[in-house]
Amino acid sequence: MDVFTAIKERRSCRKFLPDAVGEELIEKILEAAAWAPSPANNQPWEFIVITSPDIKKTIHDESVACKKKIYKKSGWGWVDKYQAGFLLEAPVLIAVIGDSEKTGAHKFLEGTEDTYQHACAAAIQNMLLAAHAQGLGSLWFTLFDREAMKKTLGIDPPREPLALVCIGQSAGSAFQTPRKDAKEKTRYIR
Amino acid sequence: MDVFTAIKERRSCRKFLPDAVGEELIEKILEAAAWAPSPANNQPWEFIVITSPDIKKTIHDESVACKKKIYKKSGWGWVDKYQAGFLLEAPVLIAVIGDSEKTGAHKFLEGTEDTYQHACAAAIQNMLLAAHAQGLGSLWFTLFDREAMKKTLGIDPPREPLALVCIGQSAGSAFQTPRKDAKEKTRYIR
Repeated sequence: MDVFTAIKERRSCRKFLPDAVGEELIEKILEAAAWAPSPANNQPWEFIVITSPDIKKTIHDESVACKKKIYKKSGWGWVDKYQAGFLLEAPVLIAVIGDSEKTGAHKFLEGTEDTYQHACAAAIQNMLLAAHAQGLGSLWFTLFDREAMKKTLGIDPPREPLALVCIGQSAGSAFQTPRKDAKEKTRYIR
Repeated sequence: MDVFTAIKERRSCRKFLPDAVGEELIEKILEAAAWAPSPANNQPWEFIVITSPDIKKTIHDESVACKKKIYKKSGWGWVDKYQAGFLLEAPVLIAVIGDSEKTGAHKFLEGTEDTYQHACAAAIQNMLLAAHAQGLGSLWFTLFDREAMKKTLGIDPPREPLALVCIGQSAGSAFQTPRKDAKEKTRYIR
């Protein structure tokens, strides 16, 4: 698939078919992730491929509890209505873990210590594009309590769980949210 | 260009030809950026396209000063030797700015308030892929003092300068740094 097509057509999928995803497709997604750039090529990412229904259930239930806390603080209606059933339905969840010690020279540059997370985000974007190019739906999910996730997945500091990438066959066509024209977001210094 | 080819072949370019880059190529790169996903589709990015030699010189000089500070703290030889001439040579620098107030529900979820930066990083990865697919070299540069960059580019809070993407025709073939096999970075919970 053409790279521009993948970039433009990719969309967040929140409704998955239960069909299992072939391991070779998952491996291709992880290979794409690993080719992301990182400061000083530190490759600060790790991946946990979750297919266990029990662990998915734990993650789902914690996410619902987390959502309730957010609703209590925000009062936002969409948070109240938000359904996280995709955490149960998606056949594969890939947790993306960042190693906060793999910061390279950024540890000496105040306010930029989190740059390792940018590299992990680039890896995630590669994953979403690789999933879409292989005909799979995906979702970049971050609305979870990181401390709870650490316990669930057995992650110790300096590692941080940054995202869950939900992957599977899309059930129906996902809605493509519009974008502001890049021109509205750009200024020039000539 | 095939998306997997772009992901795998893209590499960091630190040596550019002085040839100007057509505006239509830059616009295509920014369009790719704008199609990145973001929490609640907040699109927390803005772009400043810099071709002014004066501003490039200021950015370069600040980066050299920043590098000296990092060397003083770290004592790392590669930092001492690091040459940032690409900041002068690249015909185009695109500053990627994140709006720290566009965090969506993450402002109510402790420790995840920086998730807007992940979205900007996804946009940057799209930019690098779009540059490569159009035959351009690019570099994701982050080793700068953000406060100095704010003054240079006239950026006010809540906006944060997160990266400079250097773009131009590559002068020679850039070195492709190796990667650890994704398998070494992956575990499974079945």
